[in-house]
Formats: sequence, structure tokens, C-alpha cells
Amino acid sequence: MSETQSDELPQLATQDEERPWLTMARLAEEGDSDALVAYVESLSTADQALALSRLDTEQMPQVFETLHPDEAAELLSHLSEAQAAQTIGLLDPSSAAAIIHELPSDEQADVLGDLDEDQANAILDALPATEAAAVRELTAYKDDVAGGLMVSELLRFNEKLTVGQMIEQLAGDLERDREMDVRYGYVCDDQNRLVGVLPMQNLLFVKRASRIADIMIRNPLSVRDTTPLEDLVEFFETHAFLGVPVVNSDGGLMGIVQRKAVDYEAFRAAESDYLKSQGIVGGEELRTMPLLLRSRRRLSWLSINIVLNLGAASVIALFQDTLQSVIALAVFLPIISDMSGCSGNQAVAISMRELSLGLVRPSEFLRVWWQEVSLGLVNGTVLGLLVAICAIVFDGNPYLGLVVGLALMLNTLIAVSIGGTIPLLLKKLKVDPAVASGPLLTTVTDMCGFFLVLSLATLMLSKLV
Amino acid sequence: MSETQSDELPQLATQDEERPWLTMARLAEEGDSDALVAYVESLSTADQALALSRLDTEQMPQVFETLHPDEAAELLSHLSEAQAAQTIGLLDPSSAAAIIHELPSDEQADVLGDLDEDQANAILDALPATEAAAVRELTAYKDDVAGGLMVSELLRFNEKLTVGQMIEQLAGDLERDREMDVRYGYVCDDQNRLVGVLPMQNLLFVKRASRIADIMIRNPLSVRDTTPLEDLVEFFETHAFLGVPVVNSDGGLMGIVQRKAVDYEAFRAAESDYLKSQGIVGGEELRTMPLLLRSRRRLSWLSINIVLNLGAASVIALFQDTLQSVIALAVFLPIISDMSGCSGNQAVAISMRELSLGLVRPSEFLRVWWQEVSLGLVNGTVLGLLVAICAIVFDGNPYLGLVVGLALMLNTLIAVSIGGTIPLLLKKLKVDPAVASGPLLTTVTDMCGFFLVLSLATLMLSKLV
Repeated sequence: MSETQSDELPQLATQDEERPWLTMARLAEEGDSDALVAYVESLSTADQALALSRLDTEQMPQVFETLHPDEAAELLSHLSEAQAAQTIGLLDPSSAAAIIHELPSDEQADVLGDLDEDQANAILDALPATEAAAVRELTAYKDDVAGGLMVSELLRFNEKLTVGQMIEQLAGDLERDREMDVRYGYVCDDQNRLVGVLPMQNLLFVKRASRIADIMIRNPLSVRDTTPLEDLVEFFETHAFLGVPVVNSDGGLMGIVQRKAVDYEAFRAAESDYLKSQGIVGGEELRTMPLLLRSRRRLSWLSINIVLNLGAASVIALFQDTLQSVIALAVFLPIISDMSGCSGNQAVAISMRELSLGLVRPSEFLRVWWQEVSLGLVNGTVLGLLVAICAIVFDGNPYLGLVVGLALMLNTLIAVSIGGTIPLLLKKLKVDPAVASGPLLTTVTDMCGFFLVLSLATLMLSKLV
Repeated sequence: MSETQSDELPQLATQDEERPWLTMARLAEEGDSDALVAYVESLSTADQALALSRLDTEQMPQVFETLHPDEAAELLSHLSEAQAAQTIGLLDPSSAAAIIHELPSDEQADVLGDLDEDQANAILDALPATEAAAVRELTAYKDDVAGGLMVSELLRFNEKLTVGQMIEQLAGDLERDREMDVRYGYVCDDQNRLVGVLPMQNLLFVKRASRIADIMIRNPLSVRDTTPLEDLVEFFETHAFLGVPVVNSDGGLMGIVQRKAVDYEAFRAAESDYLKSQGIVGGEELRTMPLLLRSRRRLSWLSINIVLNLGAASVIALFQDTLQSVIALAVFLPIISDMSGCSGNQAVAISMRELSLGLVRPSEFLRVWWQEVSLGLVNGTVLGLLVAICAIVFDGNPYLGLVVGLALMLNTLIAVSIGGTIPLLLKKLKVDPAVASGPLLTTVTDMCGFFLVLSLATLMLSKLV
């Protein structure tokens, strides 16, 4: 549909279809709540996100105040975390709190965690005290551990209750929270430790006087609040459950991690590896964010790179005399640098993939190194020959071909060796390999590449000039 | 656990725990099927994948022949597609066919699609003819459309049946395929067109003489076999279904796409964007694949890059005289090239992300360009100043600082403009932006960067020497 925008007809209907934010803003301005809800629901989630991203700072509060808080929360939960936080940040704290109140607890924590501290605190102050305390507890966890992925809404019963008492409590619980998952009840002792789990449909077949402790499944599987994402992925691969209870160090029941939260976070992690590999490391960026925030986040990465680059370039500075004598070398330095970077990045990508699949362990340097070096010999020879031929065609001097070809061959070996092993090393050192592999690789391969070309040329200087 | 491998004790138990493939091979050699099954089940899915990747070409068939085909299929379904295909490829066609027979139809197609044609045909010939025909039909679809993601196992009933006849047919269907999802039945007319869907639990409450057509839900939602992944993601975001029926152009019922298949494929797509951005474009690579296959796939990407690099380097060749007069410029050329590449890649990453979230449409070049250029002005100025200061400290000549600083500033503007808009352009041209953005960006920014530095230097040559 978007492909037709350039030759669109000057009719309002077409324009509105192409620019859903115009309709959204108009309905909000007219205060037509029902029409706005119906319109929002008619949009695809992508168009909802698009439309919200294009509303200005006056239209956004108008739209959200025209919607009921639960409808606003529904809309918000379709957005990416960064956009949801940005949207909430434009509302006044009390409207924001009313909407946050309607979100499931894991999304509450995610959105507030992405706001700056003053905004988050203002909203927390406008929430009921117990809810605010619960959210604060959740925001303390990182997004990729069980504590950060869990929802705290769950059916919790004391083991001493009878089925009759339990059903009574259930009615109250459901009135408080209609969105709660009611397929399982979780049974705790007086110290709030998880002791059992109860498929709720079983209640239909037992006497009301039975004690929960007698009909529950004992010793249920659970995970710790600190269990990392990769272990949760593993858990749900092994067990066909839709959720798993989360306990703290004392065995106290804290919440439930749902399968869909783990699936979504695994998807986000893969996406985030891509962003980090391309230099988006200071935090998620949307182009609707303030210019200086975007600029600062990108510069945090670029400024480290410029230092690393200067280090690599200083190798060239050491060999200025050689370079001046054989200026053709300057043409080939960027080729050696870039091609080695490409070969090394391929090895990085394969190591990242094999690490994530469990096909290689972080301690198996030698194995990976050998697999890469044998491949590097083949590819280095092919690339070295190609660039050597180019150099000879360009300059007519076979020794120039020898220098740049040999340098590229050796540097390809270095690049794949480093590229293959550096993600393993970083993983062992608990540094995120998606962030740090690229710049470290580029710096080392640049230094080695420049050194190889220029020192080989210095050795053969008499043949080159 | 893996961290302890280097200082592991020389005890068999420890060794076996660290190297599960040894135990696996031993149990297979002993032919102890029960112990092997129990051992495989005791391993995490990551360790299963690891162990299988380390078995040699003799051990692998031994392990798979010791397992029953349905256990082997279970094990295989935990592996990545590439590894599953590699594993199946080591077995003789008849054992392979027996295992493939036990897989759900979407996984059958995925695994066979990853084998080379001869192997796939040999296995298909060993399958029952109707099953082989069905698999051939599925392998014709790409992995990321509904036809490639669907399973063809489903409960299919003619609308003219009564509930009693339907329950009779059901018993036969379930005997044939125990793994089938039985929560919904799909109702077709005589031309096999989907006309209704039936929640199976409803059967409990109706008379056996009722006609299906009277109790089914009419006009059910469905998707086309050609529906792309992104629309399926959207569908499952909007509808809380666990699956959706797939129809062909005539409305004929072909299969079911399950929510979990769509979630998994979305995860794979994100992961694949990362791999492609790092230059893994010729197909998935595992280091256990044959050396020459790995080498050829990586070279397919590298050889395009070397041509692009030569193009960029030829700009330097045009300015050899300037470079020879001011050799210090050669130190800064790789810095300008690399820093511009970094800035451009950040813009590429943000555009890829905004495209996937729907926050920007492929036709909105001008909008993105403006957002990037305004940021580029800030970052370009900061980076230009930094590199100018470095040049002045290094060389003592303020004009050298002016040349490289101005060149980096201007080239940062060019890099973010191209980086931001090129994914939109490629998307519009239906070229995969994850594959092509990087090399195109690097080539253009290198050419422009080299040209800017060297032409500015040529203009100011009298001040620089």
C-alpha cells in the first residue's frame, strides 16, 4: 500500500488511509472515544505503532486521554519497549499511572525501566503503594533473567485451605484481575514457599471439603529469579509447559515466567545482537527520540572506535618513508584492511551462532582456531592471489603483487583466527561478544595488515622502487 | 561446567560428562538401545546438539540405528535445520526415510530442503509414495511463507457428515497420527474448499445425528499459502489463535500454520539478519561442514567485496601525486574510511529496526534522510574536530587538521544519509537489505571519503607541503 503513496490521489479518504495518525488525531480532538477505539482496532499493529510515532506532543496526550486506560494499555502493549516508554513519557504522571496500572506486571517493569528516573518515580508515586512497591522490585531485575521476565499476577493459595475456601478466594481474585491466567493455582506454605501446583480443572472432580494439600501436585518444577534467559529457553524446550513458577533463594514464590515471554525475549536478543554488531550499543534508538539523545548514544560507540582507529593508523605512521617511496602501497592498504575485516567478521558470526546453538564451548579455542585456520589457508590463498594479480596489473611490478598478496594471505589467517576465537574469549570473560567482537577484531586486523604490507615492502624496498 | 575442562580430572565419569559424545558412541556401539535413549533424554538440548556434532561418520549411523525412528525424530527436531540436514545426510536413505517419516510435515520439508538434491531424492524414493508427494509439494515453498511453515496433518471432515460419522472417522485419523493437534476440526465441501471450523470439545454437547454443517463456525479466518511471514506475525498479534488454516488460490484447504512455527521463524529471521550483516550470505555454516563447502560459501561474499574495494581504492590511485607530496594523509585515509563506515552502519541498523517495527515506510526517504542529516551534522562535527586535533598533534600543520576534519565531517553526513536510506531503497526494490546494505554503504563511503580527503588536500596543496 505504501508503494502507492507517491502517486496518491488528492482525496481525503486515501490520505487518511496512508496517514493513520491524521485520523487518530482528528477523532481524539473531536473527543469521539468510541470511534477512536474502533479506528485503532481496525489498524494493524504496525500501523498503530506508525501512527503513534507520528503524533506530536499535544496530540499524543489527547489520544490517550480519549481512550479508556485499559484500551490505552492494550494499545501500548503492541509497541516496542522503547516506543512504549517514549509514549508514556509524553503523558502526565497520573494519566500514565492509570494506564500502567492496567498493564501486566512484567510490561509495567519494562516500560518504567526504559523511562528516565524522574519520570519513572513520578508515575510510581501516582500508583497505589503496594503496586508501586511490586513494580520497583521487578525493575531491579535485568530483562533477561526470570525475575525480569515474570508476571507477579498468579493464583496463590495456602496449603491449609480446603477446596471450598479456595473457590471462595478464587472468586475474589478473579474480580481483582480479569486478565490473570487461571489454568493453574500455586500452593504455598505459611512462609510463602512454593509447595505444590494445582491444575484448576481438577477442582471440578473433588469434594469441597478436601484439603488442597491432598490434591495438589507436590514438588513442582520451578526456576530461580536469577535464572538466565538461555536456561529458560532450554527449560521450555525440554518441558511442554506454558509457564513455570519463579522462586527466590528461600523458595518463596515470586511469580510465573510464561513461555511466550521467553520466546519474545529470545527474539529480542537475536535482534539486539544484530543492532549491536552494527554499532547500536548505547540503548535502543527510535528516530522520533530527541536529536541530542540519539547523537550521544551513537557517539559513545564512535568515540571508542576513533581511538582504536588511531592506534591502527599509527602503524602506518611508523612506515611513512616506505610508503613515500612506493606510493602504490597506499592504494592497497584500505583493501587489505577491509577484506581482512570481512573475513574476520564471518568467523565472528559463525562463532556467535555456534555458541548460541551450544555447538561449541567457550573453552574450545584450539578446536575453533584449527577449523578457522584451515579455512583461512584456502580463502587467504584465493584472496591473496586475486589482489596480487590486481596489483601487478595496476603497477606492472610483480614484487608489489607479491607484497600485497602475501600480506593479505597472512592477514586473512590472522583475521579468521581472531574472529573465530574472540567471541569464545569474550564469553568466558562475561563480556557481550556481540558488542565487543567487531571493534577488537577490526583494530587488531588493521594493525597486523598495515604492518604486514609495510614491513614486507620495507624488506623488498630495492625491488619495489 | 565447560570452564573446568582445561583442568579436568582424569576420571572417566568427569570425562564423559564433559564429552557426552563419548558416552553416546559407547552406548550405541554396545547396542544398548534403552540406555542410549535414557542418556539422550538426560542431556540438555544444547548438549544433544553438541554431542551429535562431534560424532564421526561411523558413529552417527550407529547411534541413529540404535534409536527407534520416533526417538531419532524427536532428537532431530531439537537441532537447527542445518545440523538436522547434515545429520540425516550421514545415514543411508532407508534409515533416513524411516526417521523423516516420523517428523511433522513442516520439519520434513525443512530438513529435505537443506539436503543436496541427490540425497533428498534418494530419501523421498524410500518414503511411501503419497507422503513423498506431499513433502515435495511443501519443499516447493520458501521457508518464510505460510506454505513453507504449515503442517499438513489436520482433522479434515466433509460438511455433509453427521457428528456420528465424524466421530467414527476421527478414531481412524487418530490411529494414523497420534501427534496431530485435535483441538479443532476443519470442514470442507466436496471440492475440498474450507467452509467451517469446529472446536472439537463442542462434539460432547450435540446429538450424534446432527450435521456438521449445522454446528460448525462458518467462514473461518484463513491465510493464503503465499502469505509472507511478516503478515503471519501480524495475524497472530491481532488474533489469540494457536493456529490458522492455509488455503490455496481456489480456497482449497492445504494445512495449518501454528503460532509456534511463526514465532520460531521470526526468531530465525532476526538471527539471520545478524549473520547476513556479518557476511554469512551463502547459506548457514556449521564448522563441522566440509572445508571446501564452507570456503566456497564465504568466498562468494568476499569476492564481491574485493571488487567493490578495488573500485573504492581506485580513487586513491587518481591522487597518487598529492598523496606522495603529503604522505601524512595516508595515515588518515583508513580512519576516515572506517569511521564513516561505523556511522553509516548505525544508520543502517536503525532503519532496519524501524522497518521491521513498521515505524517507517519504504517510500519515506526524505523523512529518514532529514532525520539522519540533522544527526550527522552533530556527530560529524564532533568526530571531525576530534580527528582534526589528532592530525594537528601528529603533524603540527593546522591545514592538515582542516583537510581531514572537514573531510570526516562531510563524509559522516554522506554516510548517515546513505546508511539511513539504503535499506528503504533496497526494500522497495525487493532486495534483502540485511545482505546488500553493508557492502554498498562501505563502497560509496570509502569512495567519497578518499575523494574528499585527497581533493581537499589537492586544493590546499601549497599549505600542506
